[in-house]
Amino acid sequence: MPSYKLTVAYDGTDYCGFQVQPNGVTIQGELMKAAIELFGASVTVTGASRTDSGVHARGQVVLLKGDKNIEVRKMPLAMNVRLPEDIAVVAAEIVDEDWHPRYQDHSKTYSYKIYNGQFHYPQEKSDSFHFRYDLDLDLMRQGAELMLGTHDFESYSSARKKNPDDTIRTIYDIQLLEHKRMIEIIIKGNGFLYNMVRIMVGTLIELGQHRRSLASISESLGTRNRGLTGKTAPAKGLTLMQIDYETKV
Amino acid sequence: MPSYKLTVAYDGTDYCGFQVQPNGVTIQGELMKAAIELFGASVTVTGASRTDSGVHARGQVVLLKGDKNIEVRKMPLAMNVRLPEDIAVVAAEIVDEDWHPRYQDHSKTYSYKIYNGQFHYPQEKSDSFHFRYDLDLDLMRQGAELMLGTHDFESYSSARKKNPDDTIRTIYDIQLLEHKRMIEIIIKGNGFLYNMVRIMVGTLIELGQHRRSLASISESLGTRNRGLTGKTAPAKGLTLMQIDYETKV
Repeated sequence: MPSYKLTVAYDGTDYCGFQVQPNGVTIQGELMKAAIELFGASVTVTGASRTDSGVHARGQVVLLKGDKNIEVRKMPLAMNVRLPEDIAVVAAEIVDEDWHPRYQDHSKTYSYKIYNGQFHYPQEKSDSFHFRYDLDLDLMRQGAELMLGTHDFESYSSARKKNPDDTIRTIYDIQLLEHKRMIEIIIKGNGFLYNMVRIMVGTLIELGQHRRSLASISESLGTRNRGLTGKTAPAKGLTLMQIDYETKV
Repeated sequence: MPSYKLTVAYDGTDYCGFQVQPNGVTIQGELMKAAIELFGASVTVTGASRTDSGVHARGQVVLLKGDKNIEVRKMPLAMNVRLPEDIAVVAAEIVDEDWHPRYQDHSKTYSYKIYNGQFHYPQEKSDSFHFRYDLDLDLMRQGAELMLGTHDFESYSSARKKNPDDTIRTIYDIQLLEHKRMIEIIIKGNGFLYNMVRIMVGTLIELGQHRRSLASISESLGTRNRGLTGKTAPAKGLTLMQIDYETKV
């Protein structure tokens, strides 16, 4: 039976995150319901990233296994007609039986959007954080540059995590873009700890307000002290954009 | 008592258009409710454009008059706390008592978004039209160029209109942009007939599919025959972006 690698997009506003949980509607739960309907019983749905409550995706990767052979080119539409409007399968391909979305080498790219004007446009309320105060983008870019490369990001993660010894990550690229009053921070890395992107953004925002210094960013990297980094930025601004697998699937 | 010129943004998805009507929730109705709460009784709310059901705005202009003096810099927030999440006042200024949003000379700019990929992203479902088939953008740009300038646009309007002798309009600019699979058509003119932008877009889409010729566009302009133009493109892709008044307000 084939294994399908699905690329999934969603507006996470109305979901309690990706991962199935006893109470609350989740992305994984909706994907399982749709897949069970499509395949009959017995499916497994495994996500590359357990996005949090309220976080969005344009390129979540999901492994779907079921006991029926469905033509891969028909998979997106077959799933989409069974999914709610705010979740969509946007691509599908066949992968080897032992392929796993989390164990293969990969990089992830996240986007964080900050609306930095006085009044938030309704069109942008669901996927950007409204921050009214002035931000020094140049300084934020300098701070972002310090975060590039390989560091112990323990101080950029919330308590909930599986392995406190596995806190070293590599950030390949951070871009701060600005269009009208929308700031977009795009971060690409080989992996991210729990809440890491949102704490990086929260720290850069405090830097942009001159409420912390560039030196405090350097100090925070490798120090393993959550007290040295900024507030966790709200979930709604965060979108999982893309996951690139280095090995051919 | 001061007259306020408000710039209003909204996601029109859940509204029966701008203008108050006996059945159905409207943008004007919500603005009136908020203003009555703010000013006490006796307010008038006049829009520059009667956007249709499902059409969005980032720069609708609304004249608000009420029997109370409220500081203009406090107006947006005072209105926004009384408005639903999908409507927002994004700017306010004082205008002369005889200023009127429709009778002053002005230009309007609309945006029409077409998602031209196979599967629509949830994030873009509410403000773009999903069109799956190939489009020849170069040909569409040539067609758009023919629409520039002053023409009788009678054949680009639906039956409902007030004055069949007033169908001459000037289009100042049309741009076709493409980012990833999102096509945005930006049209600026001195005024638009009922459904005119959506029929222009529908006609350009048929041209982009090679289902009509450039010559048919030339022929349709000034011919006063609705049968010579394309289908009306869906409301959801249309956003009123900006209204510029030539005379100082």
